[in-house]
Parts: sequence; C-alpha cells; structure tokens
Amino acid sequence: MEFTLTEDRFVETMQTQAEIGGTENGGLHRLALSDEDKEVRDWFHERMERAGLDVRIDEFGNMFGRREGTRDLEPVLVGSHLDSQPYGGIYDGALGTVAALEFVRELNDRGIETERPVEIVNWTNEEGSRFQPTLQGSGVWAGTLDVAEQYAVTDEDGVTVEEALERIGYKGDHPAEPATDYDSYLELHIEQGPYLESNEKDVGIVTGIVGLTWGEITFYGEANHSGATPMHHRSDAMVAAADVVTQVRRIPSTLGERTVGTVGSVHVQPDSINVIPGEVSVTYGFRDANAETIREAEKRVLREAEAAAEREGVTFEHEDRASADPVYFDDRCVDAVRRAADELHYDSMEVFSGGVHDATHADEVCDAGMVFAVSEDGKSHTEAEYTSWEDCYSAANTLARAALKLATDDV
Amino acid sequence: MEFTLTEDRFVETMQTQAEIGGTENGGLHRLALSDEDKEVRDWFHERMERAGLDVRIDEFGNMFGRREGTRDLEPVLVGSHLDSQPYGGIYDGALGTVAALEFVRELNDRGIETERPVEIVNWTNEEGSRFQPTLQGSGVWAGTLDVAEQYAVTDEDGVTVEEALERIGYKGDHPAEPATDYDSYLELHIEQGPYLESNEKDVGIVTGIVGLTWGEITFYGEANHSGATPMHHRSDAMVAAADVVTQVRRIPSTLGERTVGTVGSVHVQPDSINVIPGEVSVTYGFRDANAETIREAEKRVLREAEAAAEREGVTFEHEDRASADPVYFDDRCVDAVRRAADELHYDSMEVFSGGVHDATHADEVCDAGMVFAVSEDGKSHTEAEYTSWEDCYSAANTLARAALKLATDDV
Repeated sequence: MEFTLTEDRFVETMQTQAEIGGTENGGLHRLALSDEDKEVRDWFHERMERAGLDVRIDEFGNMFGRREGTRDLEPVLVGSHLDSQPYGGIYDGALGTVAALEFVRELNDRGIETERPVEIVNWTNEEGSRFQPTLQGSGVWAGTLDVAEQYAVTDEDGVTVEEALERIGYKGDHPAEPATDYDSYLELHIEQGPYLESNEKDVGIVTGIVGLTWGEITFYGEANHSGATPMHHRSDAMVAAADVVTQVRRIPSTLGERTVGTVGSVHVQPDSINVIPGEVSVTYGFRDANAETIREAEKRVLREAEAAAEREGVTFEHEDRASADPVYFDDRCVDAVRRAADELHYDSMEVFSGGVHDATHADEVCDAGMVFAVSEDGKSHTEAEYTSWEDCYSAANTLARAALKLATDDV
Repeated sequence: MEFTLTEDRFVETMQTQAEIGGTENGGLHRLALSDEDKEVRDWFHERMERAGLDVRIDEFGNMFGRREGTRDLEPVLVGSHLDSQPYGGIYDGALGTVAALEFVRELNDRGIETERPVEIVNWTNEEGSRFQPTLQGSGVWAGTLDVAEQYAVTDEDGVTVEEALERIGYKGDHPAEPATDYDSYLELHIEQGPYLESNEKDVGIVTGIVGLTWGEITFYGEANHSGATPMHHRSDAMVAAADVVTQVRRIPSTLGERTVGTVGSVHVQPDSINVIPGEVSVTYGFRDANAETIREAEKRVLREAEAAAEREGVTFEHEDRASADPVYFDDRCVDAVRRAADELHYDSMEVFSGGVHDATHADEVCDAGMVFAVSEDGKSHTEAEYTSWEDCYSAANTLARAALKLATDDV
C-alpha cells in the first residue's frame, strides 16, 4: 500500500505552528504554559477537533486526541511536544506533534480504518526550561513523577505549575495517567546530533536512549588576596575545578566510542578578578548506552576531584543531581520503523539517542520506539536549528507508516 | 629619644573605630561613602579637630588634618583609609589611619614640635568594592584619575560617586589635588600576606609595591546539546577556559620566586548542566616586582589561550583590564622605617608589597614609604583577618618614629 502524507499540507502545518511564538531569527520562544504555549495549544486543540478526534486534556495539561479503530484493542499513541527552549528551533518537538496530526488527517482523507484506535498527544513541558524537570508531563502521566509534587514546582517568578496550568485553562479534568492500556508509543524527533547527516542518511531508526548521570562538585578553598598571597600559600578552589573540567573532557575517550561528558555550569565565589576563589562549583554529566560505563565515568570523575582537592589543599562535596538508566526500545517498534523506512526507500541507519525524550517515560507504560529526522550540523536548542522540509517529510512519512503498521497489527 | 605611642589609647581608638560598621563575626562592613563610612568619617573629623589639627576635606572626600611645624617646609603626610570590603577585617586601612591620629596625639601630649608640618589623611574609597577602581581618592588627588570621570562612576544601584559624596556631606570645598608640595608620605598597613609571620618578624619594612597586569579572555565555542553532541563534534568554550586556569597556576613557577597568577572570575554561557558552554570568560592577573616578568607572564598566558582555542576548535578575544608598573619606594623613606624599627628593637625584614596601596599614588607626588604589620595566616579582605594588638602597636610605633624622623629632617 502506498501511504505518505500530503506534503504541501504537512509543510504548511509546520509553518503555521512556527509562527506562534516565532522569533526574529526564525526560532521559537514558546516556554511551557506561557501565553505562546496557550496559543499553540488552542491551535492544536482546534485542529484535533476538526480532524474528528475525541479530545481530552488531563489534569497536567497533556493533550490527547483519539481516533477509534475497528476493533476494541489497545491504542497506538503517537506524538511529541509543542513547548520550546527560551530561544529554540521550530522543529524540536513540534515536528513530531505535527507529524502525528498529519498522520490522522491522512487516515481521514484516505478513509483508512485502523484496527487499533490511534491517539495523538502533545506532552506538557518537555523542555524543562521554565519549570524543572524536563519530560514533566510524560513523567507524571507514566507515574514516574508525582502530580502534587510537580504542581508545586515554581518558575523564576514563583509561579507554580498548577497556577500556570489554571491561568491558561489547561488544567484538564482527566486524571494524569494512562486512560487505558496502550499497545505502543511512537515519537518522531529531530536527532539533535550529527550522525545522520554525516552518514548521509535520510532518516534514523532509534534503538534506544542513552542513560545519564548528573552531579555537582563544590570545592572549598580559601578566598584570599590575589597579590599578597604567594602561590605555595594558596587553597585555590578554581584550580581544582579546572582539573575536573579537563578530566570530564578526557574520561569519555577512555570508556566508549559514544560516551560523552560535559561540564555545563561553573560558579565562582567571590568572583572577583582580585580574589583567589574560595568556593567553586562545577556540574558534570556523563551519558552512554551502557549503564556500567556511566557508573564508571562517575567513579573516575570523583577520583579526579579527590586528587585535585589534595593537590590544591582544598576540600570538596559531591551532590547527585539526576540519573537515568539507558532505554532499549522494543523490537516490534524498532522493526516497524525500519520496515517503514525500507518500504519508502529511504536510506536509514540505526542510532541511539543522546538526548532524553518523552519516549523514555512512555517506554515505562508500553512498547515504544522513535524515528529521528536529520539535524543539520547537529544543532538544537538554538534558533539556528535546521532540518530541510525534505528531511522533515521523510521522517514524518516513516513515522506515519510505522504507526499505521502498529495500528493494523501488521508487524 | 624615647618615642612610642600611648598603648592603651591606641588600642582603645582601634576598638572604637571597629564598632562603626562592625559585624557579628568581628569584621567590618563599611563600604565607601555609605552610612557607616559617614559615621566613621564624622568620628575621625571630630578626633582630628580635638587634636588641634587644621581639618580640610577635598572635593573627592579625602580628609586631611594639618599640624604646623616650626619651619616653613614641605609637610610629611601620614595616613591610610577607613573604608572596608563588604565583609572585611577591622585592621585593613583603619590601622594606618588610627596610627596616624595617635602619632599627632602623641606629639601633642609630649609637646613635641616638628620642623616640618605633619598632615594626616583618610583617603576616599581605597577598597574599590562599591565603586571601582580601587585607590580612587588617592588616585584623583595624585592626578592619575580624573575628578569628573570618577564623580560619574556608579555603584550597583546607579548612584554616582558625586551623589554619594553629597549625600553624606563629604564633597568638600578644597580641590582634590596636593594642597602644597609634600616632602614625603608614610603609610602603615597590614601585610595581607604570610611572610612576616612565617619569618617570625615584628614588623615589615616595605621597599616597594609589585606591578600587575589584569586581563580577560573570552572563548567562543558552540552551545549544543550535552547528550546528542559527540565529543569530537564539540567546540567547548569551558574546556579551553579550564586550560587557561591551569596555566595561570603554572606560569608563575616558571618565572619568579614571588610571581603570582590568579584566575578570580569565570562566567559561563548558557550555564546549564545540560548544554555545552558556548561562551566562557576568564579573568587573569599576574603580579611581580619586575615589570619584564609581568609582561612575559601575560605573553605566555595568551600563547596558552591560543593553543587551547586551537585544540578545542573555539575562538577567543582578549581584553586588557588594568596594568601598573612596580613601585620602588625612595631610599630615605625606606631608611627612616628601617632605623625606626631598629631603634625600637623590633625584629624587622624587608618585604615587597603584593597588594597595591594608596602609597602607589602618593609615590607619584612625593617620596613614599610603608610599614607593614603582621597578618596572621596572611588573611585579609575577610572577617577572619587578624593582627594581635602587640603587632599592631609595634607597627604603629615604627610608623610614628619614622614619620617623626622625616618631620625633623633626621634622615
């Protein structure tokens, strides 16, 4: 069967959503539960209803649209998120949500009835920019996060998630939990990495999501006069922290081909050109497809912190910030994506996701899988994020075809 | 001649000033031109008048008190500053100002007439905490800094120096410049370094002040997703900046025994645990008694920044922030201090000051010299700063005796 999306409409829908919260530089400013998020939610709501879907909003703002199947089976869930980073791109999240909408529109246009019901979804606050953590809506839905606790999370201005949901009218009536058992979950997302492009592929078959460990190390030295204190009399917290940065850069190369390590945040006290830093905190993060490798990376960075502290005559404290085991997607979902790409004659490759996605939480509820679209130069979380319409379309077709397979039990 | 200060009164005066802006932890919060600064100025003003001094306030708030000599000669100027760091100690600056006051009180008590007039001084804003730069009052007075420009400098709340001076009533009528030619300037200050204590000395004969160069290096990489971006695909500005920190720690050891180098401030953008730093700035500062060594240190750190930028695939910009040539005090001032310490049977040693002082600017106007008091553990710019009353008294006596020598042309 020939089954592809209507290309013009697909591109048109992508462009329309990109105007809601669109920035001067062609990016998106659509923080979770903001006015812009309300606007895009209203837009999505109207489009789902016009597509004949049975819309429900749960108490955490997750938006579902249901299209019945011919049989009383567990539904296939397809979607992503419409919120963005403060200055993000127009593809991250939106591409997967638009592709889900276009999938059901295409089913309607062609009069295709699926055996399983199909639901499409827009998850609340995937980005975790305004409210932490990331993947908040899907995490609550999957039961990994507690509704009451997440309601109480505040943004910089002290506004709680619950208040923000009420303000924009998206604290729905349905419980924030799976309304039914689900057969499977499929999500299309941009790769946010360079592998598809550098391998000249059309589309990526995602086999899993890397695990991660995040932590923070704070060194305590002695703030002192930068001129009057001789070098041998110093306890410089910044020098020890710099050693950690250097080692976090080095450790991945000793562990795995795809292991990554990053120091994203450094804070110095008292932060004066003229004073030896007395307190410096550095964050670290390691990711890998193998849980054991992640644990080893963390062990090594703590060993290096200890050595640096001893060298510089400072002390340190360590705090865990987050951790997640790697996710391995289910064979039937991965196969559905692979077969869809093959049948569409797209050049595909298997990739392991370096970033987390709502599929992480969906995988706790049902079988899950993902499709990746090419990210030019691997850029994301920036207005410069770019995927050509051709690559968007290939990935959306792959998603739609794979979802159709799952919904007709053709796997 | 036996000439020492009245010990009880000297300690009493030190304790009284320490109560003005005193903190819970025994330190001082007496920012330049604040309410606390006004209070200590009023106190000092009253004490100078009661000591029979002819008081004048210049248009930049510098406070002078003059005691006439027997001959029409250039005066000897003695003093320091009464302002403090946000949470500084009770000795920094105050010790030198109190010692100057006690010097003229002692002359009065003993009915000693000096050949030269003696002036004592409290300089405005030595610390440079609320308003930058440091040494502001003495810099304006010496003509190194421009009055109009310095009036316009603002604090964090947008208050200008001129407004702050007017508010506390210390924008005086006298021009901010030397009222006359001066014979010499003497200043007592705590060492702020560990050399006197570790050499078990009573007092320090300061032979000069180190020069310095301050600068800032900003690396520009590419902010990107910390999970999805492989290590070989990164342009991580933080990794390059960490190399600079490591090298600034190392470079002094290759140049000189007393060369020091410090990275005091590091700023990361976008500063998120989950994003590869796209922009990181690091400050650096080097100090040495030799101007050539300072230039060499700066040359080396820029070479290292270039190498780091190339390694990490980032670019960088360099900005000069400040520089000062080393000061070598005049022999007659250094000799006066040495002879005073010897005659008082204090165990002394020559030291080169690692920090800058108002004497830096005074040295541009007349011959200058300094006395250092022991700093326990070299601590300063912290509430934990400490000098025993015995060490304070020894240093104050050395200052007074040296000033008396200069004022009687006994050198």
